[in-house]
Amino acid sequence: MTRVGILTVGALGNVATIVAAGLAALRQSGAQRSGMVTELPLFTPLSLCPPEDIVFGGWDIRDGTVLQSVRGFASVNHVLPPGLLAEIEADPERLGTEIFPGVSTNCGAAIDALGTSPSRVRCGSLETLVATLQQDIREWRRRHALRTVVVVNLASTEPPLDPHSLHETAEGMEEIIARNRSDAVRAGTLYAWAAIEEGCPFINFTPSNSPLLPGVLRRAEVRGVPVMGDDGKTGETLVKSVLAPMFGCRNLTVLSWSGYNLLGNMDGEILSHPENRTGKITSKDGVLGGILGYRPHSHVGIDSVPSLDDQKIAWDFIHFQGFLGARMSLQFVWQGFDSLLAAPLVLDLVRLAEFAHRRGDGGLQPQLASFFKNPKGVDEARFNEQFGMLRDYIAGIVAEENPAGRAASGSS
Amino acid sequence: MTRVGILTVGALGNVATIVAAGLAALRQSGAQRSGMVTELPLFTPLSLCPPEDIVFGGWDIRDGTVLQSVRGFASVNHVLPPGLLAEIEADPERLGTEIFPGVSTNCGAAIDALGTSPSRVRCGSLETLVATLQQDIREWRRRHALRTVVVVNLASTEPPLDPHSLHETAEGMEEIIARNRSDAVRAGTLYAWAAIEEGCPFINFTPSNSPLLPGVLRRAEVRGVPVMGDDGKTGETLVKSVLAPMFGCRNLTVLSWSGYNLLGNMDGEILSHPENRTGKITSKDGVLGGILGYRPHSHVGIDSVPSLDDQKIAWDFIHFQGFLGARMSLQFVWQGFDSLLAAPLVLDLVRLAEFAHRRGDGGLQPQLASFFKNPKGVDEARFNEQFGMLRDYIAGIVAEENPAGRAASGSS
Amino acid sequence: MTRVGILTVGALGNVATIVAAGLAALRQSGAQRSGMVTELPLFTPLSLCPPEDIVFGGWDIRDGTVLQSVRGFASVNHVLPPGLLAEIEADPERLGTEIFPGVSTNCGAAIDALGTSPSRVRCGSLETLVATLQQDIREWRRRHALRTVVVVNLASTEPPLDPHSLHETAEGMEEIIARNRSDAVRAGTLYAWAAIEEGCPFINFTPSNSPLLPGVLRRAEVRGVPVMGDDGKTGETLVKSVLAPMFGCRNLTVLSWSGYNLLGNMDGEILSHPENRTGKITSKDGVLGGILGYRPHSHVGIDSVPSLDDQKIAWDFIHFQGFLGARMSLQFVWQGFDSLLAAPLVLDLVRLAEFAHRRGDGGLQPQLASFFKNPKGVDEARFNEQFGMLRDYIAGIVAEENPAGRAASGSS
Amino acid sequence: MTRVGILTVGALGNVATIVAAGLAALRQSGAQRSGMVTELPLFTPLSLCPPEDIVFGGWDIRDGTVLQSVRGFASVNHVLPPGLLAEIEADPERLGTEIFPGVSTNCGAAIDALGTSPSRVRCGSLETLVATLQQDIREWRRRHALRTVVVVNLASTEPPLDPHSLHETAEGMEEIIARNRSDAVRAGTLYAWAAIEEGCPFINFTPSNSPLLPGVLRRAEVRGVPVMGDDGKTGETLVKSVLAPMFGCRNLTVLSWSGYNLLGNMDGEILSHPENRTGKITSKDGVLGGILGYRPHSHVGIDSVPSLDDQKIAWDFIHFQGFLGARMSLQFVWQGFDSLLAAPLVLDLVRLAEFAHRRGDGGLQPQLASFFKNPKGVDEARFNEQFGMLRDYIAGIVAEENPAGRAASGSS
Repeated sequence: MTRVGILTVGALGNVATIVAAGLAALRQSGAQRSGMVTELPLFTPLSLCPPEDIVFGGWDIRDGTVLQSVRGFASVNHVLPPGLLAEIEADPERLGTEIFPGVSTNCGAAIDALGTSPSRVRCGSLETLVATLQQDIREWRRRHALRTVVVVNLASTEPPLDPHSLHETAEGMEEIIARNRSDAVRAGTLYAWAAIEEGCPFINFTPSNSPLLPGVLRRAEVRGVPVMGDDGKTGETLVKSVLAPMFGCRNLTVLSWSGYNLLGNMDGEILSHPENRTGKITSKDGVLGGILGYRPHSHVGIDSVPSLDDQKIAWDFIHFQGFLGARMSLQFVWQGFDSLLAAPLVLDLVRLAEFAHRRGDGGLQPQLASFFKNPKGVDEARFNEQFGMLRDYIAGIVAEENPAGRAASGSS
Repeated sequence: MTRVGILTVGALGNVATIVAAGLAALRQSGAQRSGMVTELPLFTPLSLCPPEDIVFGGWDIRDGTVLQSVRGFASVNHVLPPGLLAEIEADPERLGTEIFPGVSTNCGAAIDALGTSPSRVRCGSLETLVATLQQDIREWRRRHALRTVVVVNLASTEPPLDPHSLHETAEGMEEIIARNRSDAVRAGTLYAWAAIEEGCPFINFTPSNSPLLPGVLRRAEVRGVPVMGDDGKTGETLVKSVLAPMFGCRNLTVLSWSGYNLLGNMDGEILSHPENRTGKITSKDGVLGGILGYRPHSHVGIDSVPSLDDQKIAWDFIHFQGFLGARMSLQFVWQGFDSLLAAPLVLDLVRLAEFAHRRGDGGLQPQLASFFKNPKGVDEARFNEQFGMLRDYIAGIVAEENPAGRAASGSS
Repeated sequence: MTRVGILTVGALGNVATIVAAGLAALRQSGAQRSGMVTELPLFTPLSLCPPEDIVFGGWDIRDGTVLQSVRGFASVNHVLPPGLLAEIEADPERLGTEIFPGVSTNCGAAIDALGTSPSRVRCGSLETLVATLQQDIREWRRRHALRTVVVVNLASTEPPLDPHSLHETAEGMEEIIARNRSDAVRAGTLYAWAAIEEGCPFINFTPSNSPLLPGVLRRAEVRGVPVMGDDGKTGETLVKSVLAPMFGCRNLTVLSWSGYNLLGNMDGEILSHPENRTGKITSKDGVLGGILGYRPHSHVGIDSVPSLDDQKIAWDFIHFQGFLGARMSLQFVWQGFDSLLAAPLVLDLVRLAEFAHRRGDGGLQPQLASFFKNPKGVDEARFNEQFGMLRDYIAGIVAEENPAGRAASGSS
Repeated sequence: MTRVGILTVGALGNVATIVAAGLAALRQSGAQRSGMVTELPLFTPLSLCPPEDIVFGGWDIRDGTVLQSVRGFASVNHVLPPGLLAEIEADPERLGTEIFPGVSTNCGAAIDALGTSPSRVRCGSLETLVATLQQDIREWRRRHALRTVVVVNLASTEPPLDPHSLHETAEGMEEIIARNRSDAVRAGTLYAWAAIEEGCPFINFTPSNSPLLPGVLRRAEVRGVPVMGDDGKTGETLVKSVLAPMFGCRNLTVLSWSGYNLLGNMDGEILSHPENRTGKITSKDGVLGGILGYRPHSHVGIDSVPSLDDQKIAWDFIHFQGFLGARMSLQFVWQGFDSLLAAPLVLDLVRLAEFAHRRGDGGLQPQLASFFKNPKGVDEARFNEQFGMLRDYIAGIVAEENPAGRAASGSS
């Protein structure tokens, strides 16, 4: 039992599709591991599980197979290695197993309109739904003989969930479920709760605030289950969290920071709904104030441009003031493939969460802050300092393991 | 004697002009200190000399006064605070004192063509020239009753000076001067040597390699005189040294980094000469390899666009490779006023060099690495890590001064 | 009586301010006439009134003088020639005469909130208001001994006015005024009607749809008064109307055109109100469909960035498809000073409207289409073809005047 | 005999490869004809030869087959329709026939270094070489039963050929060939001469100046053979020739126009050689002066970025001056696939050249000016006016054919 499983929420979405295709490709020699942070030499001491040993699975509320998703992705996005699709078609099992029907409790009209099929959405009381999800995890884990299963939320962004006093404790969460208070949760909560109750690490790669509620975190700590989120930091916000500190260090006053994101995949479609967009924008915009120590005028736009599909274009215009009040500007244009940027980070998080789980570290994992736009429980918003936390974590582990020679740590 | 002097090489150039105008403005309340790093709260413990107490002076090989330079700058660059010129015209003495004639030994055809006037260029043997420069410093210092004089090289970029075995030791440098070996030095060498022999800190804000030769550094160490260089990091390279580490931390492979700089002032004119450009490009381009650990395909272009005058526009196109070989890009456009970016850093360096001098720290000052494109004696090219060296330096001094409570240091 | 007057609606706004300052500057030799289309050699045959003979005046609902406006503009936008303000301060009369109080009938909450002062807003029935405006025009014209007065609407964008059956005829318009149906007009209507009734050409430089209603146009035709609008084409839309035809001529399919406008002056503030923005966006966005013959996915964003003040930054991202379905892109960034772009066009329109008036041409003036985003009565949206209409108009006049030698016309 | 042949010089280069692949794709229903100008409704009256009836062939000095070229292109550029390669592999004959060995007379060191193989380069006197090329054309035409063969030069840019008095007349050209004066020609001359002597239209899609020498044009006129060039206008220069007139029409003074081209394919490699680059830069840079009527400061950079392969990125920074001397800017970034932009224009030119040939129009074809950066014999550099020449040409033909109803012409 050396293999590790990843169960994705939203298994037919673009990011999960590339996670599945990427795992299939990595089992071949020669596939490019660029973009996987955990392939840096820095991580060698941790002996993380090899990507070849990670098994893909998941839930989705839409019809279809992962093979169809890969085909669909490849037909509109000419970015996958030319031979990969052919290889996969020849051996579709490499993509992982069949996909479980999902839950969509209280996810909002935009997600309901995704073309979900009735047979793909589980019904029942919250208690039943959680039990079913736990059952899915158990069965799948047994079938594939997995050492650990990591659950990763890659579903579309939900509308923000309003705070509720029952969210504050694990017992409150239990009460919500027992009393079927579906207004106090969203689907994300159920997946997180089921994962933790099954002893599985849980990663929230989305901006949805429903999974990592305070009571959920308490339970994860008690169970010794690592959890982390929110919102994978893949593109524009990554650049923002790197550039904003530069202005700070040089005492240049940011007058205004306007960022516009054009994206075309389903993410773009969902985020064109104002209620779903709210969470995302808060997550992207919050970074600035945290870094600069003051809130400059700022704007974050997200617009759906269907022809871009998985491509994401972001233009940021930063107006700043220097010596004697001189006004100057920095603009950047980021052009990336959203899922190709996200998928390797998902694999990193699976590897690092599994590692933390092996060590018995439960609750939030601050060393993973650099992977998130809005790292739960971490105030530091500067990317370099966040990455330094990961460096220090590794150095600490090395030092633990080699108590004699602790000198080797810390530098890059 | 609490005042500190700054003697600039190239006192009528744009950067020195803004240093002078800035010092005049800072003596008024309300002038914007943005862009001065040493005005950050981080520096409070050092009790640096207040900018109001810095006196401006310098050498130049062209005719003219600082007042004329400020007027000329203001007439083409609409960036200075509207009232500043009027205030200065009302009290021109605030700009500092008269300018000494300079030396232009072996500076190349481009600099000779700057419109130098014979009466502004000192002649004589190297020994005579060095003695004259020392005399300038001594007199000026006495006249203004200055505690310290910091000499800052802001002259046009010289062609690179070929290495010579006599450069290696202080004695070799003495021999060069004694034997009038003018082929083995350039003007920058003479200013640096004169400053150090007079016990004055010396900052090389240009990419010229002639000032901080090994033998010059030896002498500075022995004399307890702080020196640092090369090439102030004001714009495109600053951004580069912030963005490049991001690609490294995310294991994204940089395939190509092409940067184009358009600039219009005399800097642009001088750098349109290939022999002068060489040093600059080496300095700007070297940053990448040092940060990434490999040399991607790269290109640095510098072109003169006279209509931009002091504005500098840089476009960088970064082509990179991520997961499964996906190719993506990041572009940025930097639009700054070169001299408005440089001048506050010059003031920072004067304050920090004067501080180091007060402490008796001679030779290279690695804590100042973040101010330079090519920080002498420092291998670290990542801006954040360089700035961390400055943070650590301050923390160390705080700890020295408060040996009891050393907990307060280190964080931002 | 050779002088011509311009009465501006919104006389203290940025565009009118630069019109006034520009006229003052043009009375000096040496002021840059770049940006004035009518200064091209092409216009020599028309013998337009010289800009030196144009007198500035207007209405505004805010307190203040034009001198204060110029001062305010110059203090935040470092773009006017350094000496201009000093010259104007020395002889403030060059800026034109005092400003009349205005009308703000039914202009919406955003405009009401502009800081209007009660003493600056005329009250009374529609009939009274129109009579007062006519009285203003008559008096001002007499006082300055003007051959013609051209009224130009430069006021903030109003919310769109809903169509009404009474708008269709001149008699309907009279009925609206007589019966004080203030719900069926906005301030813009009153200015236009008063101008036309006084026999004065009227230009609508704003996107507001209230001035050039069908019944207003009828009256202008009958009275022989030239009128034209809507919405001066100064920046992003100008580029759009030049680039979009290129895609058409090359049979490249535009998949998506996303444009983002950042602007900082009062225009930006007013347009941050959704009801005021509507008209502007329709005007900017309509251009594409008219040119391409199909409606690509498109988006026009307008956001207020106060620190930019009169600067306007627009980023457009155009995604297009070529041979074999290949997807490519063109981006542009426009960085202009809004009022410095608009003011010379206003002067062009005054000169050309006065010329048409002299010729007795009443009603819409299609030859002026190239000056507007949404040229009334003209279907052609391509800039070059619009400019060709102006060329043809001049050629026609030249041919009329020289019936013998008609060969000289037509080329640029 | 209804089919038309295209013989390409440089048949294994990227552009020719996409011409071949495109023709194969067009024989399938559903292939995207975007980017082919002649597919616009405007061209319907001309009854051009259908692309399905065009047969591909050519010469190259490198080893390899067109199939290998397509495969090589597809493996690095993920832009071709996913199924196309598979279809082609199933039926490679659709790509056209085998490739003839070429001539490389006097082409310069860069082209010699392309990895040419001795067996692929024809040797012999100029007379022999021309005779061999004519023989190739005759044989190929007969074998494929072609109505017409159009020869298109798609070879790498040669160094500029110095003018020679013998170039001036057709007899001089004959003398050069007869006397084997290989210093007075380059390979391009030989292909053009052979084509014309065989009565075949010739298109020079490259900036090389050796094909369309004055004596060559004379012969083409006499023989009734259409010829046209130089240098296909595919990307940055196209945008330039559309934007520059806008500044002219608005009387905005262009202060500086700096353009930087990054490209990765063999074109980039060849153009990194200064002697080959010269012709290209002249061609790209000349456009401005012709349009504006004055020469602003300008710069054209071309740099090879191998990782881009067929992608071409161009950044242009245009600094301009408006009213009262205000300085503003327009930047654009063009991101295209060079060969996907060029290939459909090549097909357009083949169709239009064949049409002109059918009509008996020999010599230069000014109606094709809009396809070229440097249209031979045409002074007009503005794209819209050039395209108007094509419109007028079609209208003229329509009028000829329908002498009764000439009203239908002229508008788009």
